[in-house]
Amino acid sequence: MTGSYPIETKNKVRQLPEKAHYDHASVHRILDAGLVAEVGFVQDGAAIVVPMIYGRRNDTIFLHGARKARVIRLLEQNEEACVNVTLVDGLVLARSAFHSSMRYRSATIFGSLKLIESTEEKLHAMRVISDHTMPGRWDELREPLSREIKMTGVIALDITTASAKTSAKMPEDEEEDYSSPIWAGVLPMTASFSTLIDDDRLSAGIKPSDVVRSLEGRTL
Amino acid sequence: MTGSYPIETKNKVRQLPEKAHYDHASVHRILDAGLVAEVGFVQDGAAIVVPMIYGRRNDTIFLHGARKARVIRLLEQNEEACVNVTLVDGLVLARSAFHSSMRYRSATIFGSLKLIESTEEKLHAMRVISDHTMPGRWDELREPLSREIKMTGVIALDITTASAKTSAKMPEDEEEDYSSPIWAGVLPMTASFSTLIDDDRLSAGIKPSDVVRSLEGRTL
Repeated sequence: MTGSYPIETKNKVRQLPEKAHYDHASVHRILDAGLVAEVGFVQDGAAIVVPMIYGRRNDTIFLHGARKARVIRLLEQNEEACVNVTLVDGLVLARSAFHSSMRYRSATIFGSLKLIESTEEKLHAMRVISDHTMPGRWDELREPLSREIKMTGVIALDITTASAKTSAKMPEDEEEDYSSPIWAGVLPMTASFSTLIDDDRLSAGIKPSDVVRSLEGRTL
Repeated sequence: MTGSYPIETKNKVRQLPEKAHYDHASVHRILDAGLVAEVGFVQDGAAIVVPMIYGRRNDTIFLHGARKARVIRLLEQNEEACVNVTLVDGLVLARSAFHSSMRYRSATIFGSLKLIESTEEKLHAMRVISDHTMPGRWDELREPLSREIKMTGVIALDITTASAKTSAKMPEDEEEDYSSPIWAGVLPMTASFSTLIDDDRLSAGIKPSDVVRSLEGRTL
């Protein structure tokens, strides 16, 4: 997918604009790397932020929860939402507190909300979310039961505009601070999966598939 | 700090209430473990979510940004905000997609906003944020310059109510699925600091202090 999101009042990055990206690819890359979408919407005139599992297909983010969950009912009532996905990649330890910061990848999207009602579309969205969160697992599992689909509420958020902001820099200090005897540099941070742990009730002899095992050690 | 936050409409956890905690200690523990606060507030009737660096002291969260930054100006105009901090601790790989989920620690706080104006209070807040993000570093660095303090906007968010939601569970499958030949279990995820990288412009012979070195390998 090529192209860029329109730069509007709400998504224009004003601080450190040199770190901003508006192209679809930059935004999608961060959405695809993250695991939790921080979904903001309005309830009774106030903002609420709810962390949700998600998946992306083209320019749509799918969010799900229990059909009766407050977040699903509220998203159903809201016409639009703002979603942020941020990954922290490290600390930038400058020679002053003022110039100390973080390395990060962050995407903010604005979009219109739609409750998905048809079973077929719901199953598609549930698969997209599953493929995002635990790639390859969907095909190994049994089909969702009809009551499970009914109990699941799925919201589609069609992206109307977005921005990405990333930093992978070294400290940028005041020129006079470079002669200070203080160490400066970066402390990288990585979020990674470790090693699979068997369920307590796993039947003897059942081993994880190659698909599941390939998730071990993966980093975001 | 002992005690609990009042359970109100906005912070009551309705889904999986057995995972909810309202005591100060549970909420504070998650706030103290995270690095990014997802701050939600209202602009022109719509919600905006902005990731921010923060620090906590008692029941106050300090947020900062450039004094002229939109987020600081908007937070100054808003009387209240909602903040979520979420850490992902792993995937719960159940025998069905429906019961698959994540291990996580999540805190949601609601509070009243106040722009901090006095130099003394600003310095205190900047120190709290620094101590949270890079413990011990503040004392090693030079004092902030007067213009740096002026250029920094600091917002105090006094927590009025909050909730925590955590999951560290194994899959809980449908009874009939336990005889399925599918592997199930947990894939833990950890966010951790790795190894310090020297700044490109570091003068010869300058080594990181013990305080900075002690951050290496730390997990959230």
